[in-house]
Amino acid sequence: MSEPTTLAARLARFAISTPQENLQCPSREIVHLSMIDFIAVARAGADEPVARIAREMVLAEEGRADASLVGSDVRVPARAAALANGAAGHALDYDDTHFAYVGHPSTVIMPVVLALAQKTGATPSALYDAALIGLEGASRVGAWLGRTHYQIGFHSTASAGSFGAAMAASRLLGLSEAQTIHALSLVASRASGLKSQFGTMGKPYHAGMAASNGIEVALLAQAGFISRPSALDGEQGFAETHAGECNNAAFEGMGEVFIFGDVQHKFHACCHGLHACLEALGRIIAEGGAVSGQIEMMSVSTNSRFMRVCNIASPTTGLEAKFSFRLVMALAVLGYDTAALDTYTDAICSAPPVVALRDMVVVSIDDTLAETESVVTVTDKSGVQKTARYDLSDPLPLAEKQARIAAKSASLISDGAAQQLWDNVMAEQTLPIL
Amino acid sequence: MSEPTTLAARLARFAISTPQENLQCPSREIVHLSMIDFIAVARAGADEPVARIAREMVLAEEGRADASLVGSDVRVPARAAALANGAAGHALDYDDTHFAYVGHPSTVIMPVVLALAQKTGATPSALYDAALIGLEGASRVGAWLGRTHYQIGFHSTASAGSFGAAMAASRLLGLSEAQTIHALSLVASRASGLKSQFGTMGKPYHAGMAASNGIEVALLAQAGFISRPSALDGEQGFAETHAGECNNAAFEGMGEVFIFGDVQHKFHACCHGLHACLEALGRIIAEGGAVSGQIEMMSVSTNSRFMRVCNIASPTTGLEAKFSFRLVMALAVLGYDTAALDTYTDAICSAPPVVALRDMVVVSIDDTLAETESVVTVTDKSGVQKTARYDLSDPLPLAEKQARIAAKSASLISDGAAQQLWDNVMAEQTLPIL
Repeated sequence: MSEPTTLAARLARFAISTPQENLQCPSREIVHLSMIDFIAVARAGADEPVARIAREMVLAEEGRADASLVGSDVRVPARAAALANGAAGHALDYDDTHFAYVGHPSTVIMPVVLALAQKTGATPSALYDAALIGLEGASRVGAWLGRTHYQIGFHSTASAGSFGAAMAASRLLGLSEAQTIHALSLVASRASGLKSQFGTMGKPYHAGMAASNGIEVALLAQAGFISRPSALDGEQGFAETHAGECNNAAFEGMGEVFIFGDVQHKFHACCHGLHACLEALGRIIAEGGAVSGQIEMMSVSTNSRFMRVCNIASPTTGLEAKFSFRLVMALAVLGYDTAALDTYTDAICSAPPVVALRDMVVVSIDDTLAETESVVTVTDKSGVQKTARYDLSDPLPLAEKQARIAAKSASLISDGAAQQLWDNVMAEQTLPIL
Repeated sequence: MSEPTTLAARLARFAISTPQENLQCPSREIVHLSMIDFIAVARAGADEPVARIAREMVLAEEGRADASLVGSDVRVPARAAALANGAAGHALDYDDTHFAYVGHPSTVIMPVVLALAQKTGATPSALYDAALIGLEGASRVGAWLGRTHYQIGFHSTASAGSFGAAMAASRLLGLSEAQTIHALSLVASRASGLKSQFGTMGKPYHAGMAASNGIEVALLAQAGFISRPSALDGEQGFAETHAGECNNAAFEGMGEVFIFGDVQHKFHACCHGLHACLEALGRIIAEGGAVSGQIEMMSVSTNSRFMRVCNIASPTTGLEAKFSFRLVMALAVLGYDTAALDTYTDAICSAPPVVALRDMVVVSIDDTLAETESVVTVTDKSGVQKTARYDLSDPLPLAEKQARIAAKSASLISDGAAQQLWDNVMAEQTLPIL
């Protein structure tokens, strides 16, 4: 086979011709966990306004009963299901994050493979193969576009995600490399999404847009659609017009080494900026070093970036509580489940024991810490200090990750449903259903 | 009512609150002509590969029989119809062009209003009102984004077109101004399309994308979708991220003065760069100054920009013929219909009388001429010279425009069908059907 001359050709070769044995790698175990995490989060988010509005729009169009829709018993066309399910998966902002990608991979890719596997009757093994292809592809393209692309205003989840979605869809539909090149080139014209939508329904909707874009272009390419193979990395292509950094190192070892496994799952239903703090505090709590009633003072040091993000000193609403170092630390000490959505209420913000502990917390800046790091110190009334440091980028052992995703999904969708989901995904015997 | 503070609010006010009497303006007569032109061109383009592929994709999804699809008897959801019909309308590149917009308005906006009027049972009057709103809105937003946006690589037909499509859809669906603001803000995240697709199916597909984007966001906004009102002109909004010039003068008099009427219709089925030349030559022919057999030499002067665009000296294929000053001038003198699609064949390129005349043509550069201008001189064997100049931007009298669109549509879809279409549109008594 000839050497690919465009990025679209290189990505198409990866998507279509990566041998199945290469896909039996450590990252595939993470794909299982991310599938469980995605399905639990999407089911929990299915009644959020953005998820409901997107679902009702696609239900109103009706159409072939090809793919399941979270929150409904009615099936719809695969493209439509991916649109609504992607929005549902990101509605709570509780889905996984890949830092090199600068985006949320599973809420874009899982809706694609779930819908198309159901439509085509693919095997579970083919579904997870395509999922890994899409998740890896989105992560690599996101890293290739780089932080500049994101910082200038593009929502990489949606932009890079559209390319990953096209790769996953092309693999699952059994496209040729040549057809996949056209799918990827066309999606360069479909990939969009502005970060200025953050804080509105626009943000989660972008995930659905990217997922549905991937299915749409793969179906068109399967039918013979011709587009411009240089539309991704050529003159006036996507990278050039969208402030892409074109970090070609992002593609090193693609197909042999998988970077998707670095994905981070959220284990607290609050701002990601609070997670390292909660993990560090959790270690002190686990060692008996932070018992309510015996605490004199708590402190957390963090990168200054979070001062404007999640440092509301005295929150009064459940939403504000999700952006408050002081409040979430009080909740953790008092044993509230910071992974549960319904922990964060307006009432909890004024509960006297919470307020008392909250007021013992001092938040300070330490710019020697990475953005993923926090240091927590708890001083008890006898003057004894316990200190713990946590860095979200330190790898979590697989067993611990599994245990925490099992606990998170149980908290989101009930113990029974979570167990059933876990067994289904781990067995790879039948297709998982949203 | 308060003064709009964002561009989305200003456009929403225009879309929803422009009184119906303001829409009874000279530009509305042009909307009629553009509707006839669009429908004729879309029907003629319905079997082009891109149109067929897009149509088959939406037909495969099935769904509510809300709106007609050009080239099929089966109806589909409005969003889906707009996607396929927009692609069909631009497949031949024979639809109208607005130079301030830097785009093709009708192939984006007409699919929106045709599909939604059919779905909602709107009156013909409401359909033409919404069409003018969308055509005007797209033209104004295109002028606001400016040439920089286009030159850097964005396909304004699709990008500015998505905003116009959202305005037309919002008006026809009866959205409030507040809802329309969210439709327009969300479409800032959906508007996309790269010029690097030119020469592939991607280009016509963009028109369908923009049309369907407009319907999608209007349906979502109608159901309560909330997006970011500053996503068009605010920080990290569409203009900032997409090299928009933000020419605010583009909105002067919006709602009272209509610039859509400046739209240009194509009267020759070849490259737009040849049209001024054919018009100038046509005048000489009409006065008897260019008779085959009596010609010694023909010359055309044109802006240097076209040397790389449409100056193939000795074309050998029908496609090349569409990019050749020398060949189309020979065809015109010999009485071939340069408006007819089937005039441009491989065979005609080597027909001896055509080749003989072609070789009498000299093409020269004159950069004092605008891009829309050409000067043609025909010298006969007795040494008599006839010269004519034509500028596409000179307004064509309405009666002449009407006569030429009637002739063009008859040549594209038969005399009978064209007459029926003409009568339907001009009467505004029943909805036109693709």
